[in-house]
Amino acid sequence: MNSAAPSEEEVLRRLESFGKKIANLVLSGKEPYIEIPVRSLSNTVWDPVNRILKLGPRKARRDFFSLRESKKFMQTLLMLSIIIRARREGDYPTIRDLYYTGKHTIVYKDHLGRNRKEETWDTQTESDSVIRDIEVATGLLREHMGIMHDAKGKIVGNMIIRSKGYDIDLSRMGSGAYAIPPNPDRLEIVKVEAEYVLVVEKDAIFERLNEEEYWRRENCILITGKGQPDRSTRRMVRRLWEEYNLPVYVLTDCDSYGFYIYSVYRSGSISLSYESERLATPGARFIGVAVTDIDEYKIPRNYIIKATDTDLKRAKELLSYPWFKSKAWREQLKLFLRRKEKVEIEALSGHGFKFLSHNYLPEKIESKTWIE
Amino acid sequence: MNSAAPSEEEVLRRLESFGKKIANLVLSGKEPYIEIPVRSLSNTVWDPVNRILKLGPRKARRDFFSLRESKKFMQTLLMLSIIIRARREGDYPTIRDLYYTGKHTIVYKDHLGRNRKEETWDTQTESDSVIRDIEVATGLLREHMGIMHDAKGKIVGNMIIRSKGYDIDLSRMGSGAYAIPPNPDRLEIVKVEAEYVLVVEKDAIFERLNEEEYWRRENCILITGKGQPDRSTRRMVRRLWEEYNLPVYVLTDCDSYGFYIYSVYRSGSISLSYESERLATPGARFIGVAVTDIDEYKIPRNYIIKATDTDLKRAKELLSYPWFKSKAWREQLKLFLRRKEKVEIEALSGHGFKFLSHNYLPEKIESKTWIE
Repeated sequence: MNSAAPSEEEVLRRLESFGKKIANLVLSGKEPYIEIPVRSLSNTVWDPVNRILKLGPRKARRDFFSLRESKKFMQTLLMLSIIIRARREGDYPTIRDLYYTGKHTIVYKDHLGRNRKEETWDTQTESDSVIRDIEVATGLLREHMGIMHDAKGKIVGNMIIRSKGYDIDLSRMGSGAYAIPPNPDRLEIVKVEAEYVLVVEKDAIFERLNEEEYWRRENCILITGKGQPDRSTRRMVRRLWEEYNLPVYVLTDCDSYGFYIYSVYRSGSISLSYESERLATPGARFIGVAVTDIDEYKIPRNYIIKATDTDLKRAKELLSYPWFKSKAWREQLKLFLRRKEKVEIEALSGHGFKFLSHNYLPEKIESKTWIE
Repeated sequence: MNSAAPSEEEVLRRLESFGKKIANLVLSGKEPYIEIPVRSLSNTVWDPVNRILKLGPRKARRDFFSLRESKKFMQTLLMLSIIIRARREGDYPTIRDLYYTGKHTIVYKDHLGRNRKEETWDTQTESDSVIRDIEVATGLLREHMGIMHDAKGKIVGNMIIRSKGYDIDLSRMGSGAYAIPPNPDRLEIVKVEAEYVLVVEKDAIFERLNEEEYWRRENCILITGKGQPDRSTRRMVRRLWEEYNLPVYVLTDCDSYGFYIYSVYRSGSISLSYESERLATPGARFIGVAVTDIDEYKIPRNYIIKATDTDLKRAKELLSYPWFKSKAWREQLKLFLRRKEKVEIEALSGHGFKFLSHNYLPEKIESKTWIE
């Protein structure tokens, strides 16, 4: 078991002690409150030493006896009690299950004796937000709490993992792949015999590289998060980098969206900044497709697409982020804004279907012409 | 190898003979043309005996010397030549690769000697359409032709498959799953020890049922196509039904979208009607969530969602489809239109997290209260 993942008992203990702290306040006649780190953009900071987006030090206090906060207080305790029940009974609810299980109408009389009604929550946005609060307050990821969600990552390569007592050899998946589970921390990585990790933005490119067994020929691990990666794909990449010191290369389309996807793998995202220390891979390198590749690799003129206004706006935003401040990235982004052109990974097929896997990728890795 | 899948040699032979037929017309001085089954809605028919959507008998002739058709003629031959080249060289291009590889500007002089330009194709819609034409004309699926695309299906359960020489035991995937490859016809199903197939619309529900090993306890195969299923997930379901006579149950949300997803598994889709004979599973049963389940299973009032106008419009369309004409389905759809209410699978969690897997599903299968 990965050392970063707390045991089932530890998870339950931490959740219960969070609840007990509040119960003790009540039992000792004090006004109950919860302290929760603030998850807003204003409390998201760039950590230049660790090169990740992190949650700042600000905490918010939720007082039960504050009119403005009592609803959030109630929601937090309601969600906490549902999650604790699920852990005690060994259940694996989805975030949608949690939303439904907690959703009900509270009927009460107000201080003037009038009948009043209040919904515990109206939308899943509200219940999801409380789950995040419990994550930051307890330091437990939802994955640790056995909460299920969609998982879209795939992985193949020369490595063996162990899950639920089974050894799974990711070099023996044939034309298919191993679908990364929602909680990759519960996977034990038994053996890795690979020289690097190649993260591919697009699933179709992953399928192609897998079908021709690029990973076997190049001795690497091949992963895709299918566009904007989910938490489990990012966690898996992080673990391979952290626990096995493997270089990580990210391959995306040459456009603002692709550059951003790379940065999410490398530095984390604003909305999940509180998890960067577990999800981000500060050593990840952008292997392409770079703006300079358009000339470098003589991409045919009619494969080049005009950048949209959204692309350009997004690129300007990227330029302002501290994690895109390196000289290399500033050059790429400025060139992108000047040329107003983008290309897709598939544009490399203009030089033949084998060009990507036999020339472009190995050459870039060999010549170390990635971007950081 | 599955008997339905033609060998690599057979695929190349069929593609080449398609091309040779046209070459022979030219060589013998005749006007070249191609005959291609029409893929429009007007040529899509409901086959009540086999209970699938099928392509009708109409064929269209594309003459090289017809002004209106010569561009399509050129596109078809261009795409055919690219696919043949990929097969000869053992490449696995994506549909996007094929689009790029064929994309170029033809420069020519017209009959008045003026310089003219013509793009081979402008958008991927055009090149994809030609791929479909080649599929119907040759009777080969794109999967057979080694064309890659996104594949989103996952599968676990008591079965062993063989791919690229490896035996893969789908009961030993741990918390993860086997990601179905783009071409499941190249998987050999070695052994199946299961009583039925459960197809789950939603990935998060799949993850939950997998985490608690529902498939092991109930001895079934668990599959998800993540919403609207892709071709490879549908093909996998079809093979398990056809080759192993397994009953197939489909679990979706109780709304028009869910009902439609069920029908795509069972009867095929209009846009892919030419592949129904390989992709549809006419024996698939809808296990829920049914409109009658709202009362039957006492779904709490505040878990019920108001149906949108789109839901209602879609439900009316479904009522008009021949494949929703059974008494049971008419009742469900009419009730849906009358109640104007929908519920999600997760609403069953109102009765506890275990209710779906320990009560709802086993009871429905045991009591045979599915809908067909």
